Amino acid sequence: MFRHTKRLQFEAKPERPDPVYARKLQELIGGAFGEMSVTMQYLFQGWNCRVEGKYKDLLMDTATEEIGHVEMLATMVARLLEGAPATMTAEAVKDPVMAAVIGGMDPMQAIVAGGGALPANCQGVPWNGGYIVASGNLLADFRANAAAEAQGRLQTARLYNMTDDPGVKAMLQFNLARDTVHQKQWLKAIEELEADGLETPIVPNAFFDEEDQVHNHTIWGLSDGTDGPTGGWSEGDDPLEYLLDPEPLGGPGTAPTPDPALFSTYSTVQDAEGTVKAKAQAAKKSSTKKTAAKKTTARKTAGKKTAKSARKRA
Amino acid sequence: MFRHTKRLQFEAKPERPDPVYARKLQELIGGAFGEMSVTMQYLFQGWNCRVEGKYKDLLMDTATEEIGHVEMLATMVARLLEGAPATMTAEAVKDPVMAAVIGGMDPMQAIVAGGGALPANCQGVPWNGGYIVASGNLLADFRANAAAEAQGRLQTARLYNMTDDPGVKAMLQFNLARDTVHQKQWLKAIEELEADGLETPIVPNAFFDEEDQVHNHTIWGLSDGTDGPTGGWSEGDDPLEYLLDPEPLGGPGTAPTPDPALFSTYSTVQDAEGTVKAKAQAAKKSSTKKTAAKKTTARKTAGKKTAKSARKRA
Amino acid sequence: MFRHTKRLQFEAKPERPDPVYARKLQELIGGAFGEMSVTMQYLFQGWNCRVEGKYKDLLMDTATEEIGHVEMLATMVARLLEGAPATMTAEAVKDPVMAAVIGGMDPMQAIVAGGGALPANCQGVPWNGGYIVASGNLLADFRANAAAEAQGRLQTARLYNMTDDPGVKAMLQFNLARDTVHQKQWLKAIEELEADGLETPIVPNAFFDEEDQVHNHTIWGLSDGTDGPTGGWSEGDDPLEYLLDPEPLGGPGTAPTPDPALFSTYSTVQDAEGTVKAKAQAAKKSSTKKTAAKKTTARKTAGKKTAKSARKRA
Amino acid sequence: MFRHTKRLQFEAKPERPDPVYARKLQELIGGAFGEMSVTMQYLFQGWNCRVEGKYKDLLMDTATEEIGHVEMLATMVARLLEGAPATMTAEAVKDPVMAAVIGGMDPMQAIVAGGGALPANCQGVPWNGGYIVASGNLLADFRANAAAEAQGRLQTARLYNMTDDPGVKAMLQFNLARDTVHQKQWLKAIEELEADGLETPIVPNAFFDEEDQVHNHTIWGLSDGTDGPTGGWSEGDDPLEYLLDPEPLGGPGTAPTPDPALFSTYSTVQDAEGTVKAKAQAAKKSSTKKTAAKKTTARKTAGKKTAKSARKRA
Amino acid sequence: MFRHTKRLQFEAKPERPDPVYARKLQELIGGAFGEMSVTMQYLFQGWNCRVEGKYKDLLMDTATEEIGHVEMLATMVARLLEGAPATMTAEAVKDPVMAAVIGGMDPMQAIVAGGGALPANCQGVPWNGGYIVASGNLLADFRANAAAEAQGRLQTARLYNMTDDPGVKAMLQFNLARDTVHQKQWLKAIEELEADGLETPIVPNAFFDEEDQVHNHTIWGLSDGTDGPTGGWSEGDDPLEYLLDPEPLGGPGTAPTPDPALFSTYSTVQDAEGTVKAKAQAAKKSSTKKTAAKKTTARKTAGKKTAKSARKRA
Amino acid sequence: MFRHTKRLQFEAKPERPDPVYARKLQELIGGAFGEMSVTMQYLFQGWNCRVEGKYKDLLMDTATEEIGHVEMLATMVARLLEGAPATMTAEAVKDPVMAAVIGGMDPMQAIVAGGGALPANCQGVPWNGGYIVASGNLLADFRANAAAEAQGRLQTARLYNMTDDPGVKAMLQFNLARDTVHQKQWLKAIEELEADGLETPIVPNAFFDEEDQVHNHTIWGLSDGTDGPTGGWSEGDDPLEYLLDPEPLGGPGTAPTPDPALFSTYSTVQDAEGTVKAKAQAAKKSSTKKTAAKKTTARKTAGKKTAKSARKRA
Repeated sequence: MFRHTKRLQFEAKPERPDPVYARKLQELIGGAFGEMSVTMQYLFQGWNCRVEGKYKDLLMDTATEEIGHVEMLATMVARLLEGAPATMTAEAVKDPVMAAVIGGMDPMQAIVAGGGALPANCQGVPWNGGYIVASGNLLADFRANAAAEAQGRLQTARLYNMTDDPGVKAMLQFNLARDTVHQKQWLKAIEELEADGLETPIVPNAFFDEEDQVHNHTIWGLSDGTDGPTGGWSEGDDPLEYLLDPEPLGGPGTAPTPDPALFSTYSTVQDAEGTVKAKAQAAKKSSTKKTAAKKTTARKTAGKKTAKSARKRA
Repeated sequence: MFRHTKRLQFEAKPERPDPVYARKLQELIGGAFGEMSVTMQYLFQGWNCRVEGKYKDLLMDTATEEIGHVEMLATMVARLLEGAPATMTAEAVKDPVMAAVIGGMDPMQAIVAGGGALPANCQGVPWNGGYIVASGNLLADFRANAAAEAQGRLQTARLYNMTDDPGVKAMLQFNLARDTVHQKQWLKAIEELEADGLETPIVPNAFFDEEDQVHNHTIWGLSDGTDGPTGGWSEGDDPLEYLLDPEPLGGPGTAPTPDPALFSTYSTVQDAEGTVKAKAQAAKKSSTKKTAAKKTTARKTAGKKTAKSARKRA
Repeated sequence: MFRHTKRLQFEAKPERPDPVYARKLQELIGGAFGEMSVTMQYLFQGWNCRVEGKYKDLLMDTATEEIGHVEMLATMVARLLEGAPATMTAEAVKDPVMAAVIGGMDPMQAIVAGGGALPANCQGVPWNGGYIVASGNLLADFRANAAAEAQGRLQTARLYNMTDDPGVKAMLQFNLARDTVHQKQWLKAIEELEADGLETPIVPNAFFDEEDQVHNHTIWGLSDGTDGPTGGWSEGDDPLEYLLDPEPLGGPGTAPTPDPALFSTYSTVQDAEGTVKAKAQAAKKSSTKKTAAKKTTARKTAGKKTAKSARKRA
Repeated sequence: MFRHTKRLQFEAKPERPDPVYARKLQELIGGAFGEMSVTMQYLFQGWNCRVEGKYKDLLMDTATEEIGHVEMLATMVARLLEGAPATMTAEAVKDPVMAAVIGGMDPMQAIVAGGGALPANCQGVPWNGGYIVASGNLLADFRANAAAEAQGRLQTARLYNMTDDPGVKAMLQFNLARDTVHQKQWLKAIEELEADGLETPIVPNAFFDEEDQVHNHTIWGLSDGTDGPTGGWSEGDDPLEYLLDPEPLGGPGTAPTPDPALFSTYSTVQDAEGTVKAKAQAAKKSSTKKTAAKKTTARKTAGKKTAKSARKRA
Repeated sequence: MFRHTKRLQFEAKPERPDPVYARKLQELIGGAFGEMSVTMQYLFQGWNCRVEGKYKDLLMDTATEEIGHVEMLATMVARLLEGAPATMTAEAVKDPVMAAVIGGMDPMQAIVAGGGALPANCQGVPWNGGYIVASGNLLADFRANAAAEAQGRLQTARLYNMTDDPGVKAMLQFNLARDTVHQKQWLKAIEELEADGLETPIVPNAFFDEEDQVHNHTIWGLSDGTDGPTGGWSEGDDPLEYLLDPEPLGGPGTAPTPDPALFSTYSTVQDAEGTVKAKAQAAKKSSTKKTAAKKTTARKTAGKKTAKSARKRA
Repeated sequence: MFRHTKRLQFEAKPERPDPVYARKLQELIGGAFGEMSVTMQYLFQGWNCRVEGKYKDLLMDTATEEIGHVEMLATMVARLLEGAPATMTAEAVKDPVMAAVIGGMDPMQAIVAGGGALPANCQGVPWNGGYIVASGNLLADFRANAAAEAQGRLQTARLYNMTDDPGVKAMLQFNLARDTVHQKQWLKAIEELEADGLETPIVPNAFFDEEDQVHNHTIWGLSDGTDGPTGGWSEGDDPLEYLLDPEPLGGPGTAPTPDPALFSTYSTVQDAEGTVKAKAQAAKKSSTKKTAAKKTTARKTAGKKTAKSARKRA
């Protein structure tokens, strides 16, 4: 259960309105790596965490902080929009500076939100749950968290360079600091998982004997750059071997004979003429006897018209 | 520019059809961490890479491989659907096993794709570009890549446990191996970025002096767990301090007086009666003089009706 | 700023696993009227609320409660999935009951979330910010809130009829009660807004003199039902008049001559021949002189090829 | 079945082009509360309406009108774009007013629609079916309708303040009037449902005895505002009681032991050490015996590698 | 399997930066008919193609080319953004030209991609798999391909008119040429399918005897235009007959009695009073006896409260 | 403006309920090529049509018919769901046939729509405006229409094979007939556009002289199939030449030096060492002088920290 205090985690007071910047800040609210994403990502990871104690506590502590970051940014946006030229008419647009500001504003912040923030990014695309990661595997998820905080601090730093309002910069300095801490904590938590013997560097900690033993240490050189093999990844204790000009290991990628009831285009003649697929199917013949029997029935279901077309095609 | 050979990178031949499993495999094609995602993620990172040489080559080599992974999986899906009961009628559903298979199948694979794979996940949600990460900062992006491959191998391992078809398992063993390599290579490439002096662990490598110096090493304890501070993150050379029961640093999170032309609800009386906002605004008065002047004009634009309502409200 | 306690607002303990039901519960988490929607809806309304005091407090109190509802439901889903047949193979599907359960399960809960809840609805569609309403006008928003809680309680009631697990039913009884309260409170808050003189029944409280005075009290009968005028809406103090077989008030809906640089299909001959559009344009001629001048320039920009095609068309 | 007349319900003739405003009008076409939404919302409600007669007639009459509103707005957008500087080059952007206009235009209206309207909102986000409400419960749906018309009139009023073109304003005056009528009619239809004894104020009209009797009249004070209890909702015949500083009713929100075949991180040691979850599980032991038996089998399915990792973790 | 060469299919060098145009080019990358769409459309069609040989080869050749087109455009965007005023502050916006440029730029290209292209359209909407067509029926799909290339060349031509940069125009001249070829090739491939006897003009080649014989050659005149019957479609060997003022063939579109457990609004009284639905149901009575029996049980499940409300409604 | 009659265009009465089939029918309502798509596609094309007369009339006639098709299908879905086991509990699922039916049903049809149709496809993905095509160029759009009707009839034919209910089959026979007509009419309308001299086969009818003259008749052979050149497209009057093993025409695809204020990874050393990019940039030097000057300023904006990191990197 959650509780709320009306005071912001950190102050969010711009010195003056800046509606163009208010639009850009939306990226930190509802973008793929905005505060809504980390809020929901850590909440779902925390609720689904199967290890009670320090890991779950760290998740829930950070998740709870992030809700407050959405709050700070939403408040900042409302304040940056104070007095914005929301109602300018076509006449007024003739003042080029005013017109430019209107061009750079987010029209939905006025029309839809009445001068407030939206659960969307800086291009108006609504935030969605497909952005977040919560798999139940803590190593996989903490790695995603460290990556998300890196993108978050990167975007914050870019936005920091896009304003000179002291109030906005003060809040972003706090955000930069929090993103530094959160990057550090997830990197440290990854080390801790290994120190505790819960996970090892490759996710998941399983199937190392079952996986293909020939290709679990090769990098396939499929682009014509020649510098790939000079990287540090090809050295050290567990070097990755760079395969230059590697050949495919599989046969031709052919789709099987279609179900006539689905009306996919098919030519029995052409197939019989010795195409790649015909050869591939020959090699596969024995294993499909049972299936073939089943298909005969399906053909009947498809009915007389289909049969007729099949004849025409043959 | 790209070229294509018809042979698959690895064989994709199931021993027998399994339409229920064909649906589940869609997650590896068009899910958030499916092969479409890593294909597009590495392509965009590679195209936008500003460091020629080993990093760009590694990106383009891996990107090019991943297109072939979508190909392997799409071929596998078409083969798993061969002879699937796509046309069963209501009568036939009375056979419980057949009915169950139909219940578990992806109806779009038959109706929309004619017995083939879709650019969507196992619930039919279309793949979208919001899944991918390509920021231009290689450390931020490689961290996202290592995270994506971890999720990918995790999902592959889960799916490996959901089938006993030897042909499917053989292909997944290859995929598991590739996901192992790709996790390793991005982790090593992260080390290489630091070894080359291009990046340091915190992304981006900037604003360390400007960021809030008080809160760039504190974890805020905002959930009632008590184990958070016992983690390794609170120890060592650069320990993170756990703030227990921290107080907010900012004032109340209030939205400013609305623009009357936008018809947000507002009460001048209530505001004057000494609410939190009134007090907050008093403290802020000096900085908003210029804005206030601008707003007067805006009120006039909104016209007589609005003025009337404003009076009624007062 | 927010704080979290690890105890759930209400207990969420199913008596036994039920993976098919776990899928259905996703609708209450990430559906259009699930708990993620009301959480975000009330948070954004609260942060953007311009009336300090009881309205903002009611919003923030309820918003904070709703975060805890997502938590209860996510926990319930994880518990309903305990021991679910996540790894069943094709062989096992031959047991019809097992097969049916697998068919009815959400495959992403296993593959993507590792046996936990997702930020998505019961069909796997991710929650998105387009579901929520936060306009800054409290009457408009409270009406949306009362509507959202009605849909929420309706869906909860339907789901209540779809289980007989006492633990699940106990939690849903709590949810039903909360949805009753929340419906009541928003309906009462609407009355309060009017009692306080802040809003009147029609949103927004403006432009009553400017709006079309002929058609601000007519219902247009455009379907052939004859019972429409018998409703109570046609009676009382402020009756709405039912227009039977009404005629359109406007002229033909024609699009103007296209910009040649955009290559929309256009026939100057056909237009000259006296079509509806030609007539409509004649009537409009005087007002477009200035525009015509501007267009001449645009035509030139489009270049010689376009001019040639235009000739050919003529 | 539907029929169409080419005349618009109301005239849609701007006095002059205004491409920046043409973008903003998209919100009324394809936004969450635009005309596409109310069209589809009323159509689906009407088709799914189980009460023949006045309610269904009102739905179908209004739905049919709304299709014509999309038509009016789409026509208006095409006319506002007439002669818009769609083809301006980089050179031309040096004229600041022209540049500003281009900055504020919707680039898709030119590139994708050739100077016409799009089925999208003012930020280019396509309209989608997740916006609409059609539950089969008329009270729940009429409440959503009254809310939708309120948002619609609010956005129309905001847009009315953003133009001074007499032709545009004339059309919007008609739209404002229709939104007034539609708000009134749904509010009256809600009263009618109750007068007819079909529904009562809380949706659905069921489970009042079953729902939690302690918490079906309490507002939980979870934010630190103190004005919540002063609202009218705490008074009158059926007052809602404000719980100040309420305690959670449930136990800790813990996720159960994960299925090893899904590779969620888990520590048997840590769990045994007396964490919250261990205690919670102890209390729950009796009810899960049957489940435990089932899980043993699942572990075996997951295979030898998993077993090995499990040992290592222990 | 795929291979990549670092050289672009065609040069992509603008003469000078143009950040406003860089935004517009996004439509050709990630719009509905951008290069990502044709890439994925042809890949999925090729992989799912059931006719080995010339058709599959044509698909795979073109698909592979299109990946390289995304590459050309992404490179062009990065170059157009070189030196773009990504970091301009509020002060700088006072220069109207600079401000206008900022207003017209895509803020995500800077904030999210660090000065590169995005997998999104010119309004920032992410590309998604719902755009593509791959049905397995080659005629249906080639028709979609010819349509997609037409839209693609149309958008390219519009964008060609929006720049005067010689480098950009040179690349677009190549793109225009490729779109010409691709339109031609799919139109020719459609002829080839018929020449080979694989398909006939109507898709699919089936059910011509089963389909409604009265209405497989009539155009229903449901709008009040009178020119429809004058088109060439009403002439020739296989003329389509224009039905003027046609009557509906079906009865009233009524929804059946609802399941009480779902709480849809229903009135037994009103239904009995002779509404359209009552009459419709009478006519349908005999066929629903079995269903009715089933429903009785369902009512019991819904429980006593529901029963009570049902009584009240009656 | 539109009018509605309550009678369906064709009867929609299933003989018996079939909830599994009701889910599949959703594809024809809200799928990419369902009736909502053609409705909206033809409406927007019609409203944006710049040629008054037969073309616009054909568009509006067909558009108006399609609204009625959504109506028929929505009615059919509600009737197929009559008596569906919406409220089955976990106990009841032990009946395998019942369980299978529940597994195959669309849970949202019960939970969200109360036993009715949804504006979504058969996997629950909401319909969205990104599906439709309306460009203003009639040839491009009619080609898309012919393609859409082909996909529509194909899906209808597949669904026709998935039921044996005489009532459902009767309605689908009508739909198949209408899809036959609509395919024919758009194909004929395409011929008419050419006969009228409005368009020629390649869209748009422009830039034939400007487009690349070398590559406007070549098919690039980029996949290793050898049958591509044997197709009819390489013959006849206007044969397309098949380029085997073609070489790229452009130079390396390199991204320019990044703006330091955006923190993209960059190495001045590595770049100086003679990478491909360094060479490419040398060739481009003269044209970027002006840009370089601008960038110097940008570097200063980025501030001292960045300068420091730049030094470290060097």
